[in-house]
Amino acid sequence: MTVLFPPPPVDKAALEGAGAFTPRFDGAGLVTAVVTDIRDGELLMVAHMNAEALRLTLETGIAHYYSRSRAKLWKKGETSGNLQTVHEIRTDCDQDTVWLKVSVSGHDAACHTGRRSCFYRKVKVTEGQPLLEIGDDQRHFDPTMVYSSKSTE
Amino acid sequence: MTVLFPPPPVDKAALEGAGAFTPRFDGAGLVTAVVTDIRDGELLMVAHMNAEALRLTLETGIAHYYSRSRAKLWKKGETSGNLQTVHEIRTDCDQDTVWLKVSVSGHDAACHTGRRSCFYRKVKVTEGQPLLEIGDDQRHFDPTMVYSSKSTE
Repeated sequence: MTVLFPPPPVDKAALEGAGAFTPRFDGAGLVTAVVTDIRDGELLMVAHMNAEALRLTLETGIAHYYSRSRAKLWKKGETSGNLQTVHEIRTDCDQDTVWLKVSVSGHDAACHTGRRSCFYRKVKVTEGQPLLEIGDDQRHFDPTMVYSSKSTE
Repeated sequence: MTVLFPPPPVDKAALEGAGAFTPRFDGAGLVTAVVTDIRDGELLMVAHMNAEALRLTLETGIAHYYSRSRAKLWKKGETSGNLQTVHEIRTDCDQDTVWLKVSVSGHDAACHTGRRSCFYRKVKVTEGQPLLEIGDDQRHFDPTMVYSSKSTE
């Protein structure tokens, strides 16, 4: 059965209440997807979904996104084996973002650099300069072995 | 001292490594901000920041965003008292998203509906229909008492 999304209601109370899930896709047809690990809540990645990706995610229970850089549907983990099984989906008050709680197969990594999370760097300000400090440098896989030169998943 | 952001490097390895924080603002001049509670990691909200909001956040330690609906700088909690003190900022591999770990003052609520988190609804599919179910209906404040008709913070 194909999941279809009704258009968002004009009424704000309807948008913020219970009832139909009416994602507010932006001008590019996308919603933001925040992805956390069901185990401990760690933020793994932030991506985007078009209606097709959101529909496939709901229908299959496996996370699908839309790759803006490659302009196409992206079944996360198809190349690396790091598929994401979706345990829960939530949305926010204005329905332009979804939150996926997932478990990660394969190397237990969500980042194309081989790290568990894409958020492996902390921002620090030193003498007025905003700098990045690597907080997690553990590579769960070798990206050069997993991806071809044209694909980073 | 004013924090300035250098332009993003063309080199992908530089973008993904340690060194300068070079946020990749989109065509509208924004990065995505994911906001979690430092206490337990709960996802509170997702918002956007322009360079000014990001700079003020780094300089003051209090979260500032850019309101797309009102097209202006938004010091979160200025109306409601629910200021967000920032304990840590991270960025992702391609530097177009920041993750703020915050503690919330005032009513301990991030959502304009009065709830702790904007993500108070779960998505369920019932007979092919995507529906929203309210998971958290506890209101930490009464929005009609806190906001004027023109402002939802």
